[in-house]
Amino acid sequence: MKQLLLIDKQEQALRVSRVVDGMKAASTDAVLLADNASKYYLTGRVYAGYIYVTVNGDVTCFVQRPVELDGPEVVYIRKPEELPSVIRDIPSRLGLELDIMSYSNVGRLKAIFPDSEIDNASTVMRRAREIKTPAEIALISESGVRQERVYRRVPHLYREGMTDIELQVEIERVSRLEGCLGQFRISGDSMELFMANIITGDNADAPSPYDFAMGGAGMSPSLPVGANGSEIKPGYTVMVDVNGNYTGYMTDMTRVYSLGEICDEAKKAHECSCRIHRELTEAGRPGTEAKALYERAIEIVTEEGLRHLFMGHRQHARFIGHGVGIEINELPVIAPRSRDIIRPGQVIALEPKFVIPGVGAVGVENTYVVTENGWECLTNAPEDITGLR
Amino acid sequence: MKQLLLIDKQEQALRVSRVVDGMKAASTDAVLLADNASKYYLTGRVYAGYIYVTVNGDVTCFVQRPVELDGPEVVYIRKPEELPSVIRDIPSRLGLELDIMSYSNVGRLKAIFPDSEIDNASTVMRRAREIKTPAEIALISESGVRQERVYRRVPHLYREGMTDIELQVEIERVSRLEGCLGQFRISGDSMELFMANIITGDNADAPSPYDFAMGGAGMSPSLPVGANGSEIKPGYTVMVDVNGNYTGYMTDMTRVYSLGEICDEAKKAHECSCRIHRELTEAGRPGTEAKALYERAIEIVTEEGLRHLFMGHRQHARFIGHGVGIEINELPVIAPRSRDIIRPGQVIALEPKFVIPGVGAVGVENTYVVTENGWECLTNAPEDITGLR
Repeated sequence: MKQLLLIDKQEQALRVSRVVDGMKAASTDAVLLADNASKYYLTGRVYAGYIYVTVNGDVTCFVQRPVELDGPEVVYIRKPEELPSVIRDIPSRLGLELDIMSYSNVGRLKAIFPDSEIDNASTVMRRAREIKTPAEIALISESGVRQERVYRRVPHLYREGMTDIELQVEIERVSRLEGCLGQFRISGDSMELFMANIITGDNADAPSPYDFAMGGAGMSPSLPVGANGSEIKPGYTVMVDVNGNYTGYMTDMTRVYSLGEICDEAKKAHECSCRIHRELTEAGRPGTEAKALYERAIEIVTEEGLRHLFMGHRQHARFIGHGVGIEINELPVIAPRSRDIIRPGQVIALEPKFVIPGVGAVGVENTYVVTENGWECLTNAPEDITGLR
Repeated sequence: MKQLLLIDKQEQALRVSRVVDGMKAASTDAVLLADNASKYYLTGRVYAGYIYVTVNGDVTCFVQRPVELDGPEVVYIRKPEELPSVIRDIPSRLGLELDIMSYSNVGRLKAIFPDSEIDNASTVMRRAREIKTPAEIALISESGVRQERVYRRVPHLYREGMTDIELQVEIERVSRLEGCLGQFRISGDSMELFMANIITGDNADAPSPYDFAMGGAGMSPSLPVGANGSEIKPGYTVMVDVNGNYTGYMTDMTRVYSLGEICDEAKKAHECSCRIHRELTEAGRPGTEAKALYERAIEIVTEEGLRHLFMGHRQHARFIGHGVGIEINELPVIAPRSRDIIRPGQVIALEPKFVIPGVGAVGVENTYVVTENGWECLTNAPEDITGLR
């Protein structure tokens, strides 16, 4: 038998207390969570089944698979219909992850708990996970350290005549050998990206269906994002935005490389991205509105005459940063209509990027942890555009 | 501007006719689909937005992103609330993918179509996609050919002292260079696997939370499946089950390798897997019940005294085969309680596997297309256990 719980009891209590705070604010009596990210957050382990948390802070893990997990909180079930017989007090108001769970699965649980009013626990969980614990920040930092090592190797992976996808495959390999788990967790099922977004030349200006900061046509219309097989040519930039999931907690990081001399506009835009990083990490003291950071970035790019290239050219992304942790799209969102407030413990990927038609994309992405004393960068590789070879 | 439609008009009409047949049987007037797999099936392209199909066979693509798609069926929208103003006849019964779409998103659409009764279109779509068109079979065959090439290279990728994950990384690299798109599409959000399941030695017997045929502890409790860093040792088998998505349509294929001499029980179980393939592909004539194939496999393994090792040892999978196409878990399911019937045009991955404690896993997985004249194998690499180096 193996202990189900893979985080400290105290650490679990801290995370549970965040969930309970949200439940109290929403007047929810208990939450029944099925999302892998939620179970991982509250136990340190992914398993098949549910985690049940009451407003008193009691936790029960209803496990379907794997066999042989153990611990005081473990109850094996074969199917959710058994839940009412193993839950002591049926909650009046039961929270489910309505933003994630399928309509059919919610319907099944509603039928199992006919007397419970159903609340949406998605916001409770997103808000709980928004503020990272010190243990979570340590795991994110560890991912950042390993991701840095990979980025430092990128120039040495380039060989003359390579295409974007060929370079990507070699970056994927060194990432994996460095311990990257590969799996790129995204909340919701409409976004898809395999390992990395590596774009060069005109492909940077190919609009994608996905809500990522940068597009690219991709290798197939079944996955239309990222590298499209373009040869890396002199005068092009190569933007490398690669999966940073080394510990179950991700960092998000982008660096730009170039082949030969690139145009002044690309250099200027890259400089502007670095300026936005400096100003926003300075301005983003706890208590600041996330949307104010977005607006400040727009002021800067407008002042520098670069607005038409900011966050895309033919198609523009409407955010410049996002929380990151177990998933790549966590709170807060740095966007025009965000209601999020900058707070200590948030981990934020900031990605002011530009598309330079005919050249490629430029800009830096770093992951920061917000502290009482300011933003601390967790992805510390050099930020200049680096020559390939 | 780019044409949205990337499949022939006739091909689209054929696929639409399958959806319409299902809608008629369910008395659904129109379906509004958001799943990437559904949009890809009906247009050959993934985009952000919806595809709307009426029972008369009229198709409209409501596109949110990317910009600049064109075609007679394209209508740009900013948000789903615009749909009633662009849909000519509001359907009395509207089908949504209730098994996939989140409860919240269904709720939003219900509010947008307050006068429509909501049907579950998930079954309609799964049944439509179960029977592949000749064009789809051609894409699956192409994936099979490319996947074979990768498997033939596996023995040459092994170096002495390698761990399972190190070998996996090299297999991932050659897969990607061969054109593997990487993305592993699985319907539903509870199953996760990165590129491959490669297991050796005792790790083959580590139960996983996921509903895959084989487990493995994985490299992290955040993704507890597959390779766990075990060194490949003399006497061990190495089971390689790697992503076959080369064309947007997948093949699923497993081969077994070994280091040095392996025990007779492993050899016998592998032989038994090959026997199950021979007997089931022979027995699986159109009209056969899928569950009868499962039962026949159980008879065979019982007769050979291998039942306790079949489909796992400490934890057993409850299926031996599944449909494959755009996603890895399509219909039919070859399982004890399956109600599916074998029919021409199905593409089925058959994976009778065994876990040999202390040795590893053995067994072959092939992807077959069912024809009027029998099952045709699309994954034709040698089936014997192949020595590494």
